[in-house]
Amino acid sequence: DIRNLAMEKVAGTVLFPCKYSSNGCGSLLLHTEKPDHEDACEHRPYFCPCPGTNCKWQGTLEQVMPHLLIQHKSITTLQGEDIVFLATDINLPGAVDWVMMQSCFGCNFMLVLEKQEKNGGEQFFAIVQLIGSRKQTEKFAYRQVHTSVLELNGHRRRLIWEATPHTIHDGVSSAILNSDCLFFDTNTAKLFSENGNLGINVTISMVCGK
Amino acid sequence: DIRNLAMEKVAGTVLFPCKYSSNGCGSLLLHTEKPDHEDACEHRPYFCPCPGTNCKWQGTLEQVMPHLLIQHKSITTLQGEDIVFLATDINLPGAVDWVMMQSCFGCNFMLVLEKQEKNGGEQFFAIVQLIGSRKQTEKFAYRQVHTSVLELNGHRRRLIWEATPHTIHDGVSSAILNSDCLFFDTNTAKLFSENGNLGINVTISMVCGK
Ligand SMILES: [Zn+2]
Ligand SMILES: [Zn+2]
Ligand SMILES: [Zn+2]
Ligand SMILES: [Zn+2]
Repeated sequence: DIRNLAMEKVAGTVLFPCKYSSNGCGSLLLHTEKPDHEDACEHRPYFCPCPGTNCKWQGTLEQVMPHLLIQHKSITTLQGEDIVFLATDINLPGAVDWVMMQSCFGCNFMLVLEKQEKNGGEQFFAIVQLIGSRKQTEKFAYRQVHTSVLELNGHRRRLIWEATPHTIHDGVSSAILNSDCLFFDTNTAKLFSENGNLGINVTISMVCGK
Repeated sequence: DIRNLAMEKVAGTVLFPCKYSSNGCGSLLLHTEKPDHEDACEHRPYFCPCPGTNCKWQGTLEQVMPHLLIQHKSITTLQGEDIVFLATDINLPGAVDWVMMQSCFGCNFMLVLEKQEKNGGEQFFAIVQLIGSRKQTEKFAYRQVHTSVLELNGHRRRLIWEATPHTIHDGVSSAILNSDCLFFDTNTAKLFSENGNLGINVTISMVCGK
């Protein structure tokens, strides 16, 4: 295990270009900084944002919507800032994704409900993603409202999550890993669903001054 | 395995008094109805509502507050319909309970945050209980608001749970078992806590017409 200390020292001060320099990134980085930068680099290609598919597509941000409209025709789009995302048959066993698009303020948002087997139980994750860059997400806020349809002991319940949308550039897995989205279990899903159908009210708003 | 069908048939039509008849319950029940009724019977004694203690006290509803004030002096009470329930050191390992009282509208509410090991991870359950009967809970609604102090990617988040309070007659375990309360994991707790302290804004309101 002989280490070339002289070389390591040189590498520790040498600046390397980002691997997306040919896409327009001008960053120069220490080799220790390279992996984190390249993960988050705004010049990294966008991957197909459809969860649960094996689509290997990648391209620029501008190419994402055309790709979805041509290759993933089955995804429903609803117009408006205040819509209901209806996920049907949420009791289907195993890992399942529900996807739809919401279009408002001249932007497109992908709404995803993902069911996972986690820690021996089933968990649901509801995520709102902008078809846009991380910078663009700052212009928006959203509110997801789950209203109980089952009146346990005659009581009504509401579960509300308010946040800034994610960007499709990051994908749903980092949001799920960090629990940086609304998540709930099968008992909660039962409380808020009717005949296996879960309706989530999603309202998107613009943030003033951004 | 010889069953006395004649006796079973008789028992199936005979009415028995509730075991709390001496406490004032006048219900007469089929033996098949007895267990469910007696679990929910409003004449069943109240148990000490303090979670995480081994207090074996039981008594009437009227005796609960005097019991808490004398035997559980360390529980803090805050006055007002809009308070902050501050749970400190939420990173303490293992199962932990945080308890405080909120007093408003002439009633007392016990606020509980319970941390459990569940399905291999740690989960938090936040519960609001009226020191009162199930019938009395219908007069109230509450709203718990968790606001992120950690601004992940510069984004703020709010998690809100709105419901009718539980009654201490049922205890916290049934609420937890049914996920009929706000629950979240350690990642979410990190997002909403600062230096290991979690502040939950609790607002209680009266429901009109009840
Ligand atoms: Zn770059
Ligand atoms: Zn695709
Ligand atoms: Zn009874
Ligand atoms: Zn006690």
